[in-house]
Amino acid sequence: MSVLVVGSTALDSIKTPLANHPRLLGGSASYAAVAASFFAPVKMVGVVGKDFPQPHIRLYKKHKIDLEGLQIVAGKTFHWSGEYEINMNNRRTLETELGVFETFSPRLPISYQQCPFVLLANIAPALQHHVLDQMRRPKFVVADTMDLWLNIAMPDLLKLLKRVDGFVLNESEARQLTEEHNLILAAKKIHQLGPKFVIVKKGEHGAILSARNKLFLAPAFPLDNVVDPTGAGDCFVGGMMGYLQSARGPVEANLRRAILYGSVLASFCCEGFGLSALTRVTPAAIARRFKLLETLTRY
Amino acid sequence: MSVLVVGSTALDSIKTPLANHPRLLGGSASYAAVAASFFAPVKMVGVVGKDFPQPHIRLYKKHKIDLEGLQIVAGKTFHWSGEYEINMNNRRTLETELGVFETFSPRLPISYQQCPFVLLANIAPALQHHVLDQMRRPKFVVADTMDLWLNIAMPDLLKLLKRVDGFVLNESEARQLTEEHNLILAAKKIHQLGPKFVIVKKGEHGAILSARNKLFLAPAFPLDNVVDPTGAGDCFVGGMMGYLQSARGPVEANLRRAILYGSVLASFCCEGFGLSALTRVTPAAIARRFKLLETLTRY
Repeated sequence: MSVLVVGSTALDSIKTPLANHPRLLGGSASYAAVAASFFAPVKMVGVVGKDFPQPHIRLYKKHKIDLEGLQIVAGKTFHWSGEYEINMNNRRTLETELGVFETFSPRLPISYQQCPFVLLANIAPALQHHVLDQMRRPKFVVADTMDLWLNIAMPDLLKLLKRVDGFVLNESEARQLTEEHNLILAAKKIHQLGPKFVIVKKGEHGAILSARNKLFLAPAFPLDNVVDPTGAGDCFVGGMMGYLQSARGPVEANLRRAILYGSVLASFCCEGFGLSALTRVTPAAIARRFKLLETLTRY
Repeated sequence: MSVLVVGSTALDSIKTPLANHPRLLGGSASYAAVAASFFAPVKMVGVVGKDFPQPHIRLYKKHKIDLEGLQIVAGKTFHWSGEYEINMNNRRTLETELGVFETFSPRLPISYQQCPFVLLANIAPALQHHVLDQMRRPKFVVADTMDLWLNIAMPDLLKLLKRVDGFVLNESEARQLTEEHNLILAAKKIHQLGPKFVIVKKGEHGAILSARNKLFLAPAFPLDNVVDPTGAGDCFVGGMMGYLQSARGPVEANLRRAILYGSVLASFCCEGFGLSALTRVTPAAIARRFKLLETLTRY
């Protein structure tokens, strides 16, 4: 069985203090799908324009990602450009060209509709709804988001929260959504909006899982060379969902380990521009880093 | 055997968005000594003025803190006042009156000079040196600091770093000291300045221990009601040193658990103004929270 991943499929132009890389493969679905692919088969939903470079398609195929749900239509691929500050945490968007995403309406192939694990990676909540509408009784649905949707699509997002099992967001989004600075209280408030599992991403500080009044404090894998953090959050949730699909037993019993695998995938992502480091990862390297994470937290 | 604690002994006037508490017992030595006292006997070095309220002395005595090294001299006790923003993380100093600290010269009683564990809590590096000069072959010396000393006493601080086993500082201080944003790299640079053990405090995000090229990622105990974070960092290092004094075996084998005990003590500290919550803690409550921290990180 496969993980279904919907999200953005994009060309990213990324500037850091050290380098400038135009038109890399990017988008939340690309990162999440590749990260998930190390654990389980992935079916991707998205849209690109006719300008989408063939090497990017080949990268998806290298990871055996099912592209039946990837529409290739006339027009330009979604393009995002951003610039990181010297600390590699703060970034600003320089330009966003929606291109073919402006008129995108996801249509799920029949084979997609039975996927047990559904990852609604970061994209407009209306599109996340639209995908969910087409699914037949999925086992576990997780949504990710970004500050943009809190600003311009809050009603859609609030409706979505009533339909998902898990919700993933970063610290500042959690604070913005709940108007609560304390993250433990913020997570409690988010539960009241619907999701049984709330995962707050804290970047280099790890993540907090809140579930049934129990917390799990997950570390981030420590890195001394962050090349490009773009997509790390998408890899986190992609790795998490891929692991959940691959693991036996109830989701709740596997979720803590899944989050740590998510941290590991996110760490690889940060070590290269775009998907360049992630795509070179091996299952053995993932296993080593997971084990290392254990030695970094054991006492 | 006792832990020796030197640091500031102060009256703190603390404003938060919810309350205003003038002239509470404060100072790095007060917090650290009380935190350490739950694990081991403590000998405190400091100075207060004749205006120092008797109830504060009684609080030290309640915790069996040896006060032979606490000078009570003519003049005013060091007074700090500060105000917290609504997020309870950012604070600004409203006023600092050094009082009797302006002319303080620590003199260690003979009984103090044999202490195996020495905590140079946050105070001017010159005073930390002065205390260390009087010690006879201590087993383990840890220094804490604050941004002020990075700004006005860097030469003294750099000399101190060559004399201590462990150095504790917070994220922004680590970045300021090393001019390196990445904390893993910053810790590496700090090792080159002398200390074998570098501990970076990250507040609600926990702490990083760097030792012999090995890292330990310590969580913070999650709190949903931070009343007053003043002194939490001092309690962290005080709890850590108290536990180390109480534990058998080599320091390095106990340091990870010691840091977690430090986190636990810091969490209690945040739950009341000044020392009010910390002083009511019981060994059983500490043990419960330590155990709970384990369940929050186990997978």
